[in-house]
Amino acid sequence: MGKSKSQFVSEITPMDEDFAQWYTDVIKKTDMVDYSSVKGFMVIKHYGYAVWENIQAHLNKRFKDTGHKNCYFPLLIPERLLQKEAEHVEGFAPEVAWVTHAGKEKLAERLCIRPTSETIICEMYAKWLKSYRDLPFLYNQWCNVVRWEKSTRPFLRTSEFLWQEGHTLHETYDEAQEETIKILNIYREMAEEFLAMPVLVGKKTEKERFAGAHSTYTMEALMHDGKALQAGTSHNLGQHFTKAFDIEFLDRDGELKNPYHTSWGVSTRLIGGIIMTHGDDRGLVFPPKVAPIEVVIVPIATQKEGVKEKAAELFERLKNTTRVELDDREHYSPGWKFNEWEMKGVPVRVEIGPKDIEKGQAVLFRRDTLEKTIVALEDLEKEVTRLLDDIQKNLLYKAKRARDEKTFYVQSFEELKDIMSTKQGFAKAMWCEDPECEERIKRELGVTIRCIPFEQEKLGDSCPFCGKEAKEMVYYAKAY
Amino acid sequence: MGKSKSQFVSEITPMDEDFAQWYTDVIKKTDMVDYSSVKGFMVIKHYGYAVWENIQAHLNKRFKDTGHKNCYFPLLIPERLLQKEAEHVEGFAPEVAWVTHAGKEKLAERLCIRPTSETIICEMYAKWLKSYRDLPFLYNQWCNVVRWEKSTRPFLRTSEFLWQEGHTLHETYDEAQEETIKILNIYREMAEEFLAMPVLVGKKTEKERFAGAHSTYTMEALMHDGKALQAGTSHNLGQHFTKAFDIEFLDRDGELKNPYHTSWGVSTRLIGGIIMTHGDDRGLVFPPKVAPIEVVIVPIATQKEGVKEKAAELFERLKNTTRVELDDREHYSPGWKFNEWEMKGVPVRVEIGPKDIEKGQAVLFRRDTLEKTIVALEDLEKEVTRLLDDIQKNLLYKAKRARDEKTFYVQSFEELKDIMSTKQGFAKAMWCEDPECEERIKRELGVTIRCIPFEQEKLGDSCPFCGKEAKEMVYYAKAY
Repeated sequence: MGKSKSQFVSEITPMDEDFAQWYTDVIKKTDMVDYSSVKGFMVIKHYGYAVWENIQAHLNKRFKDTGHKNCYFPLLIPERLLQKEAEHVEGFAPEVAWVTHAGKEKLAERLCIRPTSETIICEMYAKWLKSYRDLPFLYNQWCNVVRWEKSTRPFLRTSEFLWQEGHTLHETYDEAQEETIKILNIYREMAEEFLAMPVLVGKKTEKERFAGAHSTYTMEALMHDGKALQAGTSHNLGQHFTKAFDIEFLDRDGELKNPYHTSWGVSTRLIGGIIMTHGDDRGLVFPPKVAPIEVVIVPIATQKEGVKEKAAELFERLKNTTRVELDDREHYSPGWKFNEWEMKGVPVRVEIGPKDIEKGQAVLFRRDTLEKTIVALEDLEKEVTRLLDDIQKNLLYKAKRARDEKTFYVQSFEELKDIMSTKQGFAKAMWCEDPECEERIKRELGVTIRCIPFEQEKLGDSCPFCGKEAKEMVYYAKAY
Repeated sequence: MGKSKSQFVSEITPMDEDFAQWYTDVIKKTDMVDYSSVKGFMVIKHYGYAVWENIQAHLNKRFKDTGHKNCYFPLLIPERLLQKEAEHVEGFAPEVAWVTHAGKEKLAERLCIRPTSETIICEMYAKWLKSYRDLPFLYNQWCNVVRWEKSTRPFLRTSEFLWQEGHTLHETYDEAQEETIKILNIYREMAEEFLAMPVLVGKKTEKERFAGAHSTYTMEALMHDGKALQAGTSHNLGQHFTKAFDIEFLDRDGELKNPYHTSWGVSTRLIGGIIMTHGDDRGLVFPPKVAPIEVVIVPIATQKEGVKEKAAELFERLKNTTRVELDDREHYSPGWKFNEWEMKGVPVRVEIGPKDIEKGQAVLFRRDTLEKTIVALEDLEKEVTRLLDDIQKNLLYKAKRARDEKTFYVQSFEELKDIMSTKQGFAKAMWCEDPECEERIKRELGVTIRCIPFEQEKLGDSCPFCGKEAKEMVYYAKAY
């Protein structure tokens, strides 16, 4: 109680001093997350979970509007199933958790906690699919997965996380490819329009693709510190799994065939992305559409007659159209509340005190620019809506500008090395498609090809790192 | 294709011939559920999962309207945490799954997959709670849990299931008790008003209460075969866990105290309850409010001009107010579709053919009574809404009547034995409160006290089984 603004701010390490510490300070102080006693496993607190609920609601609608249905598949996968697709087991076996006992009994076969569900879902699809008439299969599940990580950070990389995983089957390669790209577009629109987080979209290199995929597509965002975040992936799995799992259907021509297969997912990692895209030295900054609370009303001088009542009236007026909270706690000062809600990134604050009531007005504070404006009470709903809309757009605009300022065209290894050791960010360059050239950059600089973007630019004729003929343009970055 | 009604029906074992087989036939044939290759673990297929989504949406609103917020706690619980509350570990240790390895490494401490989350949540609450001002804590999570079961049946008893678990902390015993009952009432209203499933509400006996609870409250439904289903529980946990986990707060009087604690949950078991309450020999019967699809439109003679278009028009008209599906599949006959949607329990079917169009009408079929009526097309929305409302009420009425017909007042052990070996159902009787008397009935008849109901009736002065003084009235039943 009675904390001053400087005390609040002093509890958060400045971003440009130590970004990792800034991140930890912010998420711990804002009821976003906490560490559990199992290393690498996080507790998603109510304020963080509310963000996930908003993402879920948005994506669920998009998925359902495009014909997808939700299901639920078992948490545990028998070892023999995991092993059926060779690349897949190689990719995931080192990081799965094994259940070996139930009660006092040892299990006949070890079961792993799903790191992803291709294998157990394919086993079921093999039972369910009979004819081309059953296709496409368009299913999704929302669930938890476990991948044992050595080095973890809440939301960004944790041994357990929440996600959705879509798994679809199609008659032809083209239909599977169309689905893969359709979902990537849904993800991109969600990132940009809902999270105000601009993303590059494109294909992963062979080295970076999903274990068992024919090709992997990705969206990549740039965080405040210049590191990239892989924010969602969509895989065209070809027939890798459908052959390994004997999934067959009777086609129009009377022949038995293996269908084509996709899978795609986004996770609670997106929450980390929102924080590291929009946050500032005062704490969180939420885009309104995904904010747990869009508007907070803080009454001033509540001991004065009519203030509490007026604040409650404004709350009633706003609650039908916005996620609004009335902060009528009595043992905190308005100044303390201002600071707390700023730290928690609420997009708009409405201040209402005796003088405002006298003048028939309220003060609106916007978190993104820290500006205050005065509005007539009769225009409140309209002005709040307009302001939320403006904040949403401004955050996307700012994030795009920040990304563009940290996107560099590099023409030599030295340039890439220099940029990655100073400003970081995205480095765009031509690429020879040689995995060895890619590997050398990773080994020497800790920098990976984030994607081969759909939007290609012709930056030259040769690979700036090995001199061989260039095949396409790619984006390099250090990544989370 | 071309299956006749009798073929459809012949694939479902009649309920009164073999209820367990009827249940298995129905859930397998209706895209509700499937068996996975891990024994006791079910796959919830899209049609079953849609029921769960409707229950979630309904309860989430009720929980949030009463001040609860959602969080997410880790899947895995360290062995030492599980052991902190003595009764709790004794109750759950025999049925937990143990994770012993991650990748190739053996873990230093075994971790169990949560069978329920009191222990890991209490550990966090001990960190978070400081002052009486922080109270109450009103948190809930939607998640999966694992309890290794020897004998399983989809939805009713499975080694993994989905549920919600609420965990709250309060300043006083009375507030915790109030919360416990408030949630039980939310569950009861959900069961009766949303699932059309009448329930008895009351307290569990000491023998039947949750491992670690001060007292457990329950709602008990009666299935078609006369067996009871425990459909939801709400526990007043007193200070059992808060003392064991050192959860303390600084109270108004400046003293450190342990708060009072509740937990409560309902699970995917409810889906089994809906099926076994309302189903009939043709298959599923869904109450409209929880039905995945409320209305299906089946066009007749689609080769005739204007039929497809009219069906599509009706679909557009209904889709804003109801969960409606247009079955315009071309390779199935209307009769085949009628039978399939009846088996899948869709409450209302709209039939529209050339003659109907000529007369400006449609045929409405209601699944609960199998009756058809003709409505003018201009009244369609109004009539469909009225019909859905009527079906919802009728199903609750029918289920209540069925339960009342299977509720017996028993006055002797012989009577109880007779009823439980013939009609089954609820047996109400006075009880002496002696656990040994309760234990004997369980041992000899496989019958348990389902609850000590809030609505007491004075049925006599002595326990009809042991002759001792009666303390209260209870309901006995065989249970799932």
